[in-house]
Amino acid sequence: MQRKIEVCLTPALLDLYAIEESIVVVIDILRATSSMVYGIDNGAEAIIPVAQVEDCLNFSGKGYLLAAERNGEVVEGYDFGNSPFSYTKEKVAGKTIVLTTTNGTKALHLARARASKVVIGSFLNLEVLCTWLKAQDKNVLLLCAGWKDQFNLEDTLFAGAVVHQLKANFDHFDDSSVAAEDLYILAKEDLRQYIAKSSHSHRLAALNIEEDVKFCLQLDLCKAIPVLEGERLVLLK
Amino acid sequence: MQRKIEVCLTPALLDLYAIEESIVVVIDILRATSSMVYGIDNGAEAIIPVAQVEDCLNFSGKGYLLAAERNGEVVEGYDFGNSPFSYTKEKVAGKTIVLTTTNGTKALHLARARASKVVIGSFLNLEVLCTWLKAQDKNVLLLCAGWKDQFNLEDTLFAGAVVHQLKANFDHFDDSSVAAEDLYILAKEDLRQYIAKSSHSHRLAALNIEEDVKFCLQLDLCKAIPVLEGERLVLLK
Repeated sequence: MQRKIEVCLTPALLDLYAIEESIVVVIDILRATSSMVYGIDNGAEAIIPVAQVEDCLNFSGKGYLLAAERNGEVVEGYDFGNSPFSYTKEKVAGKTIVLTTTNGTKALHLARARASKVVIGSFLNLEVLCTWLKAQDKNVLLLCAGWKDQFNLEDTLFAGAVVHQLKANFDHFDDSSVAAEDLYILAKEDLRQYIAKSSHSHRLAALNIEEDVKFCLQLDLCKAIPVLEGERLVLLK
Repeated sequence: MQRKIEVCLTPALLDLYAIEESIVVVIDILRATSSMVYGIDNGAEAIIPVAQVEDCLNFSGKGYLLAAERNGEVVEGYDFGNSPFSYTKEKVAGKTIVLTTTNGTKALHLARARASKVVIGSFLNLEVLCTWLKAQDKNVLLLCAGWKDQFNLEDTLFAGAVVHQLKANFDHFDDSSVAAEDLYILAKEDLRQYIAKSSHSHRLAALNIEEDVKFCLQLDLCKAIPVLEGERLVLLK
């Protein structure tokens, strides 16, 4: 079959895409999907993304780890937020994490409602994700979580990295995939420096999470692809 | 005052921006805003953008030129569509044109409802537009008309060209203005070749309007900036 790649630059545009037969890759590089990949790679049994901070509380006292981030910070009273350093083997192996984040979980829920399959992408699992996408007989939509429905650079760069790797195996590309790939090619020698231009980067700098940003921009640290099964993200096998 | 430039990549995202105190530049390079600039530059008294093809009919038989485009083609029974070659001095000088197009007029109406001022941009009036924007004490939102609410390359490239010229005079830039400028820098040596990568270009190629595309990518052919006064686009004086 002829296959296409499209890039949805923010969740606010998702309604424009027919994804019923597509694989949707959810992308929230700083930091939700990077941490999801790292957590599942480190043996977390599952991650349950929920929409509201209050939804996390329903899982309280039942053996779950509760993670809640809003506007870049851990919500008071929660085990942790979305820093990847909270998703190490020691902390998450064998555990199920209930997580809510500003942008990433919203994008996940929108995708889940319609897509054929939903997986999680980040620079940490770029290679294994692309190898798997090439082997499927499906169209691919790369869904950037953005920042409060606005375009952001880091998610777009990752979408561009995927387009760059998949290009030879696909037939059709929309304008946003062309733009995303060209921005990635421009940025790839030094992603950190390029992302320093972004508004989100300024926001994150103010939160002292420079180490998180560096961590999330590492290539191919992980072999895991988290996939949505029902309402749980689990290891794709 | 500190001034910011933002780029709204499609009209579907316009609600995310506070534009009540801003100048909004509406951009629909292929071909609506190019033709508007060319028409006003050639002495058209005014251009009235209307939302629906049927709305044009209300102006029938009253001395107006009626222009209607849908999906790239002139609607049957109308004087012309949005090819710039229909907006020559011979055809439009002293006339008022009632115009509806697939994307451009929609973006105009959305902007008009909230913005402090709405002007029209195209490569044809890039220089004069940027000189004027620099001299205003206002934030600027560059509104790409896109294609049916989706991102497109040519409108984004023009937004990037404006960002490139205004950069030294403004203080804040959102992520989409960073991306648009970098894409413009990448493309500027040969805009035509770069735009050939776009989906819209394929659509337009099928319509045999290669000459229109070339025309719309010329720099600084015009001195006019069309500005919205009430429901009419007129020459900014």
